[in-house]
Amino acid sequence: MSVTEALAEYVTHSTYEAIPRDVRDEAKRAIVNYLGCALGGSVEPALDIAIRTLAPYSGNATACILGRPERFDALHATLLNGIGSHVHEYDDTLPKNFIHPSVPVGSPLFAYASANPVSGRDFVHAFILGLEVESRIGNAVYPAHYLAGWHITSTTGVFGAAAAIGKLLGLTTKQMVWAFGMAASQAAGIREMFGSMAKSFQPGRAAQNGYTAALLAQADFTAGERALEGPRGFAAVAAAEYDLGKITAGLGKDFELRDNAYKPYACGLVVHPTIDGCSQLRKEFHPDPESIAGVRLRVAPLVLDLCNKSELKRGLESKYSIYHAAAIGLVRGKGGLQEFTDEAIADPALQRVRAVTTAVGDDTITEDQVHIEVVLRNGETLTKFVEQSLGNVHRPLSNEQLTEKFVDQAVLALPRHQVDAIVEQCWRIDALDNAGDLARATIPRIAGPLRSGRTTH
Amino acid sequence: MSVTEALAEYVTHSTYEAIPRDVRDEAKRAIVNYLGCALGGSVEPALDIAIRTLAPYSGNATACILGRPERFDALHATLLNGIGSHVHEYDDTLPKNFIHPSVPVGSPLFAYASANPVSGRDFVHAFILGLEVESRIGNAVYPAHYLAGWHITSTTGVFGAAAAIGKLLGLTTKQMVWAFGMAASQAAGIREMFGSMAKSFQPGRAAQNGYTAALLAQADFTAGERALEGPRGFAAVAAAEYDLGKITAGLGKDFELRDNAYKPYACGLVVHPTIDGCSQLRKEFHPDPESIAGVRLRVAPLVLDLCNKSELKRGLESKYSIYHAAAIGLVRGKGGLQEFTDEAIADPALQRVRAVTTAVGDDTITEDQVHIEVVLRNGETLTKFVEQSLGNVHRPLSNEQLTEKFVDQAVLALPRHQVDAIVEQCWRIDALDNAGDLARATIPRIAGPLRSGRTTH
Repeated sequence: MSVTEALAEYVTHSTYEAIPRDVRDEAKRAIVNYLGCALGGSVEPALDIAIRTLAPYSGNATACILGRPERFDALHATLLNGIGSHVHEYDDTLPKNFIHPSVPVGSPLFAYASANPVSGRDFVHAFILGLEVESRIGNAVYPAHYLAGWHITSTTGVFGAAAAIGKLLGLTTKQMVWAFGMAASQAAGIREMFGSMAKSFQPGRAAQNGYTAALLAQADFTAGERALEGPRGFAAVAAAEYDLGKITAGLGKDFELRDNAYKPYACGLVVHPTIDGCSQLRKEFHPDPESIAGVRLRVAPLVLDLCNKSELKRGLESKYSIYHAAAIGLVRGKGGLQEFTDEAIADPALQRVRAVTTAVGDDTITEDQVHIEVVLRNGETLTKFVEQSLGNVHRPLSNEQLTEKFVDQAVLALPRHQVDAIVEQCWRIDALDNAGDLARATIPRIAGPLRSGRTTH
Repeated sequence: MSVTEALAEYVTHSTYEAIPRDVRDEAKRAIVNYLGCALGGSVEPALDIAIRTLAPYSGNATACILGRPERFDALHATLLNGIGSHVHEYDDTLPKNFIHPSVPVGSPLFAYASANPVSGRDFVHAFILGLEVESRIGNAVYPAHYLAGWHITSTTGVFGAAAAIGKLLGLTTKQMVWAFGMAASQAAGIREMFGSMAKSFQPGRAAQNGYTAALLAQADFTAGERALEGPRGFAAVAAAEYDLGKITAGLGKDFELRDNAYKPYACGLVVHPTIDGCSQLRKEFHPDPESIAGVRLRVAPLVLDLCNKSELKRGLESKYSIYHAAAIGLVRGKGGLQEFTDEAIADPALQRVRAVTTAVGDDTITEDQVHIEVVLRNGETLTKFVEQSLGNVHRPLSNEQLTEKFVDQAVLALPRHQVDAIVEQCWRIDALDNAGDLARATIPRIAGPLRSGRTTH
């Protein structure tokens, strides 16, 4: 049996009962993290433009877009969910292949569920399978494919979306093979687009294309049957080196979700240990910002290459400032979206702590680590060494921390009481009779002050 | 100025007056050839499935699909025009880069024109620019990109579609740069899909994606600004070797359309010289099929590797039979779509000539050539040496031959009187006040016997 067929057969034959409990639980964590990202990003201009531009091209408006009042067809809703959930770059990461796995899979599933009846259990099952498919294909072509400049989240995400929707549509194995073929037909996305709106468009489009692939395959629209392993298939064409064995090894036993990581802070990864350690010091000692005379950091040398900015003019710059990272940890104890705004960099308490922070590079410190000394005006010194940064696979965010992150993001789009109800429902998605209820719960119910400030023209 | 910006600026600043007359005339020939292909392919099952599957996802039904009664939004109509016009693989070819250039450019233009007012002159101008953009990008990455397995018609076609529609939308140069960025974001399609419905989907999807890129760019949806030359741009990511200088060299002076070739016969290229030579013998000597005692062919050795099939069971097989090629030339004097059907292979006259035909490989014969001897029962021998096959750049099809081909294709979908009116109008497209009239002229007006046999469920 070919690799493509083996993968297709696994997806079509998989049962929810055969998925280990820890994997199902991890899927729920990924879905909570995904949905928070989608709600946080739902107010971004990139999404506004896409919605406005594509509205005349939407078909039957049976689907909803997470966090938005507009209704679109399910394929467009998939694209738009994808843009919204990736635009803050706050979504999850598989450290072994740099795929951000939930956007291409969660986006079509929420769009599908908002337009078609599907149980929460089937939703979670399809999510697990989609994520498994995209990550395994990613493992096979990583690192050559990624290093060449492909945006691996979108190039493999199209397969994940096809698998997830194809599972819900009940494709036969032959049809799933065609769906993978149609996914390979559309696999695209390059890292040259990073730093522009096209960045978040790419995984959104991949998700929409994978959904389309599954629909066409269901109607017996044929495709080449060696999408992955053929001499001109995805792997051979898009990767200088690859190992197709990684696609099928341990299939059904080893699960990619077990390696999934969630970003605790809405900024560059290398300043995460500093925010983490400073937040811990704040929690333990409650230092008054006025009482802080100096902060001395020892960090991996790379941190200073990337994040040595102390004069901040725009909120965006603060995402790459080790000084700001120390300040928000010590003053606010967190690094959510609101810690990196224009308002945040003008906060006098944060300005004060930034001004007294120094950092030196140290070869003995890894990028997951930091050594922190906080000198107080009374002469006392608080110290903290972070061995493993919060959010990496060795120190995963707790469910409570994921909930906190969710709320921090979602309140940008929705009132707090609605946000609390959504996240509560999301944690029990596997028990919902209709997963579409969760998608619909994210529609804004009021045209209140929260939404009036949005860019809508 | 970067390559991407230079190309964008050329497109946005180009005037119709600056396009040489021979190029405008060649554009009309390409458009006639394109439209005939679209009408011939409009009755194919691949298109039926796509129409049926995607109908619920179509937005405002402002556009028409060439040769079909259904109406869709212009983006879907673009995709569907693309499938229909490529599905018979009878469209044009640029021999220097193997791009089939008209499908990705004509498909969005006809869809756009059917939904928005656009003069024939602006249509032809946008067609020329789109074709120029895709072929120049193709030249830059050919042959490495093609040999790696990319379907170069779709990977470069997305840029051509973006340029053509972007020109009609009046994009600024900056917006055109973004449109090229969004095109690069979506550049996809692999040769592994050849031989399946996904083959024709690929250039159709490319056309739709390029159109979408232009729409989003018009709304200031931003993209990376070094789509072509960036270190992780299209060329670097998708070609092991490339020469970006080919994109801008002679821009505005040299035109790719001058090298465009049109297939005279609906089958594999290597049997074209045989159909050509046998058709010439038929025209000159009118041999009765009953009078033919033997046909002896000397062909390039490759021809026998690819097309040595004499026992034919299905119409499709006849496209790769050198024996069938000789027979249709001598008996019918042409090689249109109807010469490769199940009915054609059962035609007793064709069976008789096939049975007495032999072929030998000869190293001195090129793939554009053939040596033919027809031995008649009266002992007479007719001979013909074809030096350059009809349809290649040295022996282009005449306008009359293009009209004949158009009719041969279009009568599969529409009654003859409608076909004649369409092709007459197409030859003067540059004089039309509204190019959309031509698109609308292809809508079937009757539900007669011609259409009742189609698969529509």
